[in-house]
Amino acid sequence: MKLLEEKVLKEGIAINENILKVDGFINHQVDPALMKAIGEDFASHFEGKGITKVVTIESSGIAPALMTASAMQVPLLILKKSPSKVLNENMYQTIVTSYTKGTSYELTLAGHLINEHDHVLIIDDFLANGEAATGAIRLIRKAHATVAGIGILIEKSFQPGRAKLEEQGFFIYSQVRVKKLGKDLIELA
Amino acid sequence: MKLLEEKVLKEGIAINENILKVDGFINHQVDPALMKAIGEDFASHFEGKGITKVVTIESSGIAPALMTASAMQVPLLILKKSPSKVLNENMYQTIVTSYTKGTSYELTLAGHLINEHDHVLIIDDFLANGEAATGAIRLIRKAHATVAGIGILIEKSFQPGRAKLEEQGFFIYSQVRVKKLGKDLIELA
Repeated sequence: MKLLEEKVLKEGIAINENILKVDGFINHQVDPALMKAIGEDFASHFEGKGITKVVTIESSGIAPALMTASAMQVPLLILKKSPSKVLNENMYQTIVTSYTKGTSYELTLAGHLINEHDHVLIIDDFLANGEAATGAIRLIRKAHATVAGIGILIEKSFQPGRAKLEEQGFFIYSQVRVKKLGKDLIELA
Repeated sequence: MKLLEEKVLKEGIAINENILKVDGFINHQVDPALMKAIGEDFASHFEGKGITKVVTIESSGIAPALMTASAMQVPLLILKKSPSKVLNENMYQTIVTSYTKGTSYELTLAGHLINEHDHVLIIDDFLANGEAATGAIRLIRKAHATVAGIGILIEKSFQPGRAKLEEQGFFIYSQVRVKKLGKDLIELA
């Protein structure tokens, strides 16, 4: 997606060969017009796929996923990173381990918000090793719902996330594919 | 705001005299059309106040705050609940203690994203004791920016948050004011 590619090249900050900071327009400060364009782009790419819900993982996926859900006129489901303190019955839960960050978290989804008739589009900001997307897929399968596809803002195409997900038969559309990172270097695919 | 009042009365679930679950349309599943209407309502209430940015706290404030920023055509700043692992220089930080939940967290804001010319609107989903809003205000003041007002989706008007913030001279607009909660009881103000 041209607009996001330009923004990444102009305002993204490559720290080293693994870390790309996009705090100025995606994660910490958010540009609503860019998010709207991102949402419309995802909606047009996944049009006609019978998608009933958009699913994302809190919290940096929420802004693009909301704009996607808005453009598609379907509800957004936010997978929570810690179990709700309020009610725990009928909760789907799974542990996600991030090898890049060296952390683990519990991802939860309330059972009454999804069912076997749901066909969902997963939206997330980054795809690197695919751990978060894989965790989301596990929860969606526990609910017997199906995955229509995975929409990613920025894919690190030098990492194995895409291959792992494609091996399982999932369709991935990334708006920007970063082929190489280095100190002050961003090379797109 | 009529639309949100109706939604709270129809789909909100009062667990006890303190807890109102709105997981079905605000926190866990999000209704994009409702969020758009919420954002437009905030934008019209704070029109002409010279607002340069909308500020919210991750993660349940992100959806309504993004739609508000979108309607106002200004950037959204998301205050993070844990310090960025990537870069720590020029970070404003403060500790927020939630007496209701019995938890504390660190709220952070990158210094390069805000300055003394910013006049911000704080948007959050709930106002109860005002701890989160007070923490956000501390960060905004550390950056020498100013607060134009506070927009809340659901205020628990039986708790002291509003009084504490108004004492400090802040203007608060709540779309829904809940006067009383109890098992299966929601009474609006």
